[in-house]
Amino acid sequence: MADVNKVVLAYSGGLDTSVILKWLQDTYNCEVVTFTADLGQGEEVEPARAKAQAMGVKEIYIDDLREEFVRDFVFPMFRANTVYEGEYLLGTSIARPLIAKRLIEIANETGADAISHGATGKGNDQVRFELGAYALKPGVKVIAPWREWDLLSREKLMDYAEKHAIPIERHGKKKSPYSMDANLLHISYEGGVLEDTWTEHEEDMWRWTVSPEKAPNTPTYIELTYRNGDIVAIDGVEMTPATVLATLNRIGGENGIGRLDIVENRYVGMKSRGCYETPGGTIMLRAHRAIESITLDREVAHLKDELMPKYASLIYTGYWWSPERLMLQQMIDASQAHVNGVVRLKLYKGNVIVTGRKSDESLFDANIATFEEDGGAYNQADAAGFIKLNALRMRIAANKGRTLF
Amino acid sequence: MADVNKVVLAYSGGLDTSVILKWLQDTYNCEVVTFTADLGQGEEVEPARAKAQAMGVKEIYIDDLREEFVRDFVFPMFRANTVYEGEYLLGTSIARPLIAKRLIEIANETGADAISHGATGKGNDQVRFELGAYALKPGVKVIAPWREWDLLSREKLMDYAEKHAIPIERHGKKKSPYSMDANLLHISYEGGVLEDTWTEHEEDMWRWTVSPEKAPNTPTYIELTYRNGDIVAIDGVEMTPATVLATLNRIGGENGIGRLDIVENRYVGMKSRGCYETPGGTIMLRAHRAIESITLDREVAHLKDELMPKYASLIYTGYWWSPERLMLQQMIDASQAHVNGVVRLKLYKGNVIVTGRKSDESLFDANIATFEEDGGAYNQADAAGFIKLNALRMRIAANKGRTLF
Amino acid sequence: MADVNKVVLAYSGGLDTSVILKWLQDTYNCEVVTFTADLGQGEEVEPARAKAQAMGVKEIYIDDLREEFVRDFVFPMFRANTVYEGEYLLGTSIARPLIAKRLIEIANETGADAISHGATGKGNDQVRFELGAYALKPGVKVIAPWREWDLLSREKLMDYAEKHAIPIERHGKKKSPYSMDANLLHISYEGGVLEDTWTEHEEDMWRWTVSPEKAPNTPTYIELTYRNGDIVAIDGVEMTPATVLATLNRIGGENGIGRLDIVENRYVGMKSRGCYETPGGTIMLRAHRAIESITLDREVAHLKDELMPKYASLIYTGYWWSPERLMLQQMIDASQAHVNGVVRLKLYKGNVIVTGRKSDESLFDANIATFEEDGGAYNQADAAGFIKLNALRMRIAANKGRTLF
Amino acid sequence: MADVNKVVLAYSGGLDTSVILKWLQDTYNCEVVTFTADLGQGEEVEPARAKAQAMGVKEIYIDDLREEFVRDFVFPMFRANTVYEGEYLLGTSIARPLIAKRLIEIANETGADAISHGATGKGNDQVRFELGAYALKPGVKVIAPWREWDLLSREKLMDYAEKHAIPIERHGKKKSPYSMDANLLHISYEGGVLEDTWTEHEEDMWRWTVSPEKAPNTPTYIELTYRNGDIVAIDGVEMTPATVLATLNRIGGENGIGRLDIVENRYVGMKSRGCYETPGGTIMLRAHRAIESITLDREVAHLKDELMPKYASLIYTGYWWSPERLMLQQMIDASQAHVNGVVRLKLYKGNVIVTGRKSDESLFDANIATFEEDGGAYNQADAAGFIKLNALRMRIAANKGRTLF
Repeated sequence: MADVNKVVLAYSGGLDTSVILKWLQDTYNCEVVTFTADLGQGEEVEPARAKAQAMGVKEIYIDDLREEFVRDFVFPMFRANTVYEGEYLLGTSIARPLIAKRLIEIANETGADAISHGATGKGNDQVRFELGAYALKPGVKVIAPWREWDLLSREKLMDYAEKHAIPIERHGKKKSPYSMDANLLHISYEGGVLEDTWTEHEEDMWRWTVSPEKAPNTPTYIELTYRNGDIVAIDGVEMTPATVLATLNRIGGENGIGRLDIVENRYVGMKSRGCYETPGGTIMLRAHRAIESITLDREVAHLKDELMPKYASLIYTGYWWSPERLMLQQMIDASQAHVNGVVRLKLYKGNVIVTGRKSDESLFDANIATFEEDGGAYNQADAAGFIKLNALRMRIAANKGRTLF
Repeated sequence: MADVNKVVLAYSGGLDTSVILKWLQDTYNCEVVTFTADLGQGEEVEPARAKAQAMGVKEIYIDDLREEFVRDFVFPMFRANTVYEGEYLLGTSIARPLIAKRLIEIANETGADAISHGATGKGNDQVRFELGAYALKPGVKVIAPWREWDLLSREKLMDYAEKHAIPIERHGKKKSPYSMDANLLHISYEGGVLEDTWTEHEEDMWRWTVSPEKAPNTPTYIELTYRNGDIVAIDGVEMTPATVLATLNRIGGENGIGRLDIVENRYVGMKSRGCYETPGGTIMLRAHRAIESITLDREVAHLKDELMPKYASLIYTGYWWSPERLMLQQMIDASQAHVNGVVRLKLYKGNVIVTGRKSDESLFDANIATFEEDGGAYNQADAAGFIKLNALRMRIAANKGRTLF
Repeated sequence: MADVNKVVLAYSGGLDTSVILKWLQDTYNCEVVTFTADLGQGEEVEPARAKAQAMGVKEIYIDDLREEFVRDFVFPMFRANTVYEGEYLLGTSIARPLIAKRLIEIANETGADAISHGATGKGNDQVRFELGAYALKPGVKVIAPWREWDLLSREKLMDYAEKHAIPIERHGKKKSPYSMDANLLHISYEGGVLEDTWTEHEEDMWRWTVSPEKAPNTPTYIELTYRNGDIVAIDGVEMTPATVLATLNRIGGENGIGRLDIVENRYVGMKSRGCYETPGGTIMLRAHRAIESITLDREVAHLKDELMPKYASLIYTGYWWSPERLMLQQMIDASQAHVNGVVRLKLYKGNVIVTGRKSDESLFDANIATFEEDGGAYNQADAAGFIKLNALRMRIAANKGRTLF
Repeated sequence: MADVNKVVLAYSGGLDTSVILKWLQDTYNCEVVTFTADLGQGEEVEPARAKAQAMGVKEIYIDDLREEFVRDFVFPMFRANTVYEGEYLLGTSIARPLIAKRLIEIANETGADAISHGATGKGNDQVRFELGAYALKPGVKVIAPWREWDLLSREKLMDYAEKHAIPIERHGKKKSPYSMDANLLHISYEGGVLEDTWTEHEEDMWRWTVSPEKAPNTPTYIELTYRNGDIVAIDGVEMTPATVLATLNRIGGENGIGRLDIVENRYVGMKSRGCYETPGGTIMLRAHRAIESITLDREVAHLKDELMPKYASLIYTGYWWSPERLMLQQMIDASQAHVNGVVRLKLYKGNVIVTGRKSDESLFDANIATFEEDGGAYNQADAAGFIKLNALRMRIAANKGRTLF
C-alpha cells in the first residue's frame, strides 16, 4: 500500500463515495480533500459540502464546470462528428478528462500527492480518470478503492456506512435498479434487466426524454447558428455553450429524441450493454453534418470521416490528454474555420430532420457557372477525359487478362 | 466520332433513352441493342420491348435482376455498414455496377463494340457506368450522348422526339419536377426546389414512405435473422434477398422510415442536394450494427469502421469493379463468418429502435467468469497494471516537462 | 500463486531458462515439460535434451521449426512489406507467435495446465508469448518468473544455479555484454553501451554480417523468383522457404547487408535501443517491393501501404493470433495472386540495388497503346478533362474567396 | 481555342520551351511573359533572359527560389518522413507547386489571364502545375502545348525551331538519351533503356553521385542539428535551408548515396520507370527518423506513419495546394515542436548509418526509474495485468469456441 499524505477524492456526496471518503481516512490515515463538480448532471452539488464537513474534511471544492465542460470538451468533440462504434455519442467518456484535470489541479493547489475515485475495476471510467491523471501529473498516486477493498457488495457497503455513521439519505423513492451516470451531454443506464441483450429496455427507465409515442403531435422547428463549427445561437438568440446544450436537451427531450440501446466494446476487453439519452447531442450531430455539408471541402470532409473512428476510440478509451488526441484536434479545429451558417431542423417524435442549411461560405453552387472569366462553366466534355484516365489502370489490367488483383 | 458497329443501350423505355436510341441509330448509323433491367424500380419493364421494336431494334434484353442486385450488390455493401458522408446509403451508386456488368455481358453476347447510357455529363452515374464498363471490357467504346449532342434542354428533346415520331406517353399526372432514380434499395430526388439548400423539401415529393406524422400510432415489431451478415428471415420466415428488401421497404415505408435530405459531394467536383427514401436500407443498417455488436470482435469491428469511409467512397465514385474494392470486400466478407443471430426492432413513426439481439455466437457475457479453470474470472486488480503501462509513455513525457507532443 | 500441475517451459538450455526450470519445480512443485525450438538461431538445440534430463524432466520436446517459421510467419509478413516505425523488420516479433502456438500444442498434448517463458517484465516478448497463449487456450495459466521471483540480478541467478547444481557451461569466450535474440530472420542486440543513444555501436558486436568496409570489392548479382508474393527460387534454383532465407542471409551477410541501429517504442511504454542484423530480410523487403511495382495495381498497392503500419504494429505488439491480424492477412494474401516474376539485384557493401524486374503478369507498358481495338491509345487530350474535374472543388472554393479550408 | 491576352510561361531557356514560347506567340497571338526559376537544378538561369529578349519578350522573370523551395516545400515534406510507394522521395513532385505558385503570382502582377508549361500529356507534371494554378487562381486559363499541338516528335520540334530561327545551343556533348528533371532535391531520369524494366540502368547515366564502388574507402561522419524537425546546422555550423541541402547533396554524392531505380504508378494511370539521385534527401530521411525516434511520442509517431502514404500521394498527385494537404500539414508541423537535437551519421559507399542521436528533449530513459516520487519505477508486475486485459476479448472468443473472427 502506497504511503499517502493527502488525497483528492472525486466526491459526489452519495453513499459510495462517502464510504470511500471514510475508508481513505481510516485505511491510509491521510487527509482527504473532496471535489464535487456540477457537470449538469441535474442534482444539487451543494449538499456534498455539509456531508464532507461532517466527516472532517477541511478542504472542500465544489465547482460549477458546466461551461468549461461544453466549451472545451463537448463542442470540440462534436466538431469531428464523433461516434463510437457507429452509435454511441460518448457522453460519459467526454466528462472524465475534465474531472481528471480538476483532480490534478486541486492536488497541485492543496499539495496532495494522490487522487481517488469511485469507478469500479471492470469499467472504462477508471482508465479515463487515471490516464488523464498520470498524463497531467506523472508522479501522482492513484487510489481506486473498488480495486483494493473487500466491500464488493451493496450489503457490505451499507454495513460499513452504518458502522461508521456515514449519513445515508433514505429516499422515499425506490432505488433505481440501474447503474447511472449523468452530465449535461447525457444520462446512461447499465445493469438490471439490460444484462440480457435480448430483453427490451423498460419504458420507465428513461428519465430525460419522453417516448416518441408521448411526444407532441406537432413538430418543433429550430434554427441553429454555427460559428467555426460550434453552435452559438438557437433561433437567432445567442447563448453560451452550456445554455445551448441545456436548451437542446430540453427541446430534444420533449420531442422524444436521443434514446439509444446498444452493446459496446469496453477498453478493458468485455462487451457491455448500455442505454443512453442524449437529446441535445443527437440534434447536434445531425446539424453539424448538415452545416459541414455545404461549407467543407469534399476531401477535408472525407479525411475527417476516415480519422473519426480513431478519434472516437481515443476519447472512449481515455486518451483525451494524450499527444495523439491533441494532434488530431489541431487538424479537426483547423477544418472548422469556414463552418459557419445556419441549419434548420424539424424535430418530431424522435426524428431529427434537416430541412435547410445556408451559409455565406457555402460551397454549394446550383449552377457552377460563374467563376470562369469567359463565362465558361463546367464543361461536360471534360468528364470523358476524367473517366478515361481514372479507368486507365483497370483497362491495362483487364487487357492483360487480369480478373481480380 | 468513334466508328461503331453495334451498341448496347441501357434503355428504360422513357423519353430520354428513347431519343438516345433514335439518335444513336441516326448519328452513328449503327445497330442498337436495348437492355432494360428490373431492379425493383417499381415500373413495368415489359413495355420497353414494344417501344424498342417500334424503333427497329432486333436484339432486346429485358432482365429481372432483382435477386442478383440484392444478393450480390446490396447485401455485400451492407456487410460493411456502408454510409457515404455519414448519411447516404448509396442506393443509386450500388445499382450502377450491375447495369455496367450486364451491358458488357450483352455486348459480348451480341458482338457489340460499344455501350451507351443516358447519364448526364455532370453527375456521378456516367462515371459509375463507364468505369465498370472499362474495367470489364477494356477496349469497349462508350457513347454518352449527353456529353456529345446538342439536345441539352427539355424542349429540344421533345422537338427531336416529335420530329422522329418517338412514342411519348402523355400521363394524366403532372410531370414530376424532380430528377428521380429508383431501384429496390431506394428512390432519389434531385432538382426543382431542392436546388436551394435552404428551402424545405416538399411533402408531396416523397413516394415510397408516409410521413412520420401519418404513420401508424402503434409501433410495429419485427425480428430479423442473420446468417453470415445477411438477413435470411423476417419474423422467422425465410425468404430470398430481394424479398427481404421488398418486405422491409413495405414495412419501413408504412412506418415513415428512411427519408433523408442531404447535400453531398459528387465525384466530378461539385456539391449536390439529394433527397432519398431508403426504408428497408435504413432498417438494415441499424439492425446489422446490432447483430455485429454481440458477434464481432472489438478490433475487427473498429478496423471495419476505419475502412468503411474508404469503401463507401469506392462505391460512390464507381469503383465497384476495381481491384481495391474487391480486396476490401474479401476482408469484409471474412469478418461476417460469425455474424449470425436475431435482432428485434421496434419501428415507429420514422424511428428504428433496437430492442434486443441474440446469437448462439454472442461474445457478450454478463459475468465474464466461467472460462478460467480455477474458477477465477476477470481480476479487477489487473486493471491497475493495464492502466499503468498504457500511461507510461505519457508519464515519461510529462516527467520531462512535455506539455503537448 | 496459481495452483499448477504441469507446465510447459520454453527452454533454450541456457542458464536463465535452466534456473527457471529448477525454480518452477521447486516453487510450484509441479512437473515441467521442456520445449526447445530450432528457429535457425544458429545454436545446437540437441544439448538441451541432456540438460533437461539431468534436471529430471520426463517430457522433452525438441522441434525443428525452421520451415514452418519461414513459410507460415516470415513470408506472410513480408507480403505486406512490413516495417515497424519505418525501420525495424520485426525479426524477434515474428518468431514469438510460433513459439506460443507450440507451447499450447504441447500443453494440449501433455495435459499441462500452464506455460512458462524466460522473458522479462519490461519487454515486448512477454506480451507476445502470452497474448498468443491466451488467444489459443483461454484458460491456460502463465508463469512468468521474471515478474514473480526475486532473482533479479545476474549474481543472484548464478548463486541460485550453483546452489542447485544447475550445469552452467563456462565458455572460453567472454560473456557478451549484450542481450541477444536470434532466429532465421535476424539477430538482435540490446543493452551494454547501447543504453546511451549517442554512443556508437561497437564493430565487434555484429555477428552475422561483415562490415560494408570488409565486404567484397566486387558486387554480387542475384535473381529472385516470386510466386504469389513469396520467393521460390534463387538464381533459378527452386528451394524451400527456410533455404531461401538461409541462402539470402549468407549472401547478404557476406556483402555487409542488413545492419540496423534504432530506438524503438515498446508496447509496454518505454523507448528502447536495439541493433539488428537482418541480411536476408533486408534483401527480401527491397525485392518484394520491386516485383510488386510491376505486378500490383496502383490502388491495391496504396491500400497495402496505408494499412501496413497497423499490420506491423499488430505483429510488434503480439497480436499475430488476433482476429484483426487474420482479417488483414486475408486481404494481403489475396493481393499477391499476381505477384509473380523475377527480380534482379546487385548486392555491394551494404547496398541492395534493384537492377531489373520482369513478369509475365507485368502491368508495365512502355507504350500504353495496344489495348484499344481501333488502335487508339492513351489520348493526351483526356488529361485536360481529368485535371479540370479534379480541380473543380478547389476552383469553386477559391472563387468564393477561400484561402485555406 | 481559348481567347488569351497574355500568358506566363514556365521557361527554362531550352529548346522545348523556346519552341513553346514562339508557338504561343504565333498560335494565340498573345503576349508572353517568361518565368525562369533557379531551384538548384545546377544550370545557369540568366542565359534565359537573352533568349527571351531575342524572341521579343518584354516581361522576363528570373527568380532564385532555392531558399523558398527548401524552406517552404522540401523541409515541410520531410517532417512527415514522406516516401511515395515505399521508395520515391518526391524530388520532382515537390518543386511543381512552387512553380505553379510563382506562375500565378506573376500572372497577377502582369495582368496575364493564362499560364503555360512544357509538361507532356502523359505525365504527372501537367497535373501538378495545373491543379496548383487552378487552386490559386480559379479562373486562369491553362495552355498545355503538348496536349494541343502536332509537334509530337523531336524532328518536328527541331524543324519548327529552325524554321522560326529559334536559337538552339549545340553542345559538344552528346544529347542525353534520358528525359531529365533536376532541382536542389534530386535529378531524375526516364526513357531510353529504362523503358525495359529488366534492363539495368547504365552507370554513365548518373550525374550527381559517384557509384558506391568509386566512393572513398573511408567513411565520412557528420552531425546534423535539428530544430522543430528541420536541420539547422551541419557539424555545428548553422546554415540556411538551401545551404543545408546543397551541402548534404555534395557529401552524399561523394559517398555514393541516394541512387534509386523504381517503377512507379503515375496519377494518370500507367506505370513508369524512373531513376533518381537524391543524395541529400536520402540522408535527411534517415536522420529525421532518428531524431524523431528519441523525441516523438509513440502514438504520435504511429499516427504520422499511418497518414504518411496519404500525404505522399497528395504531393505526388499535385494536391500541395489542396485544403486536405494543408490540414494534414498542420498536424505534421505541430508534431515537430519537440523534434530537437543532434543525429550523428556515418556515410560510406552508399550507406547512411545512424551511429548516435541525442536531445535535451529525449524521451529515451534507460532506467525508467526516476519519475515516481516514492522512488518507485516501472513495476514489472503491472505487465501481467496489462497482458491479461489486452487478451481478454480473445480469451472470451476462444472460450466460446471461435477459431477465427
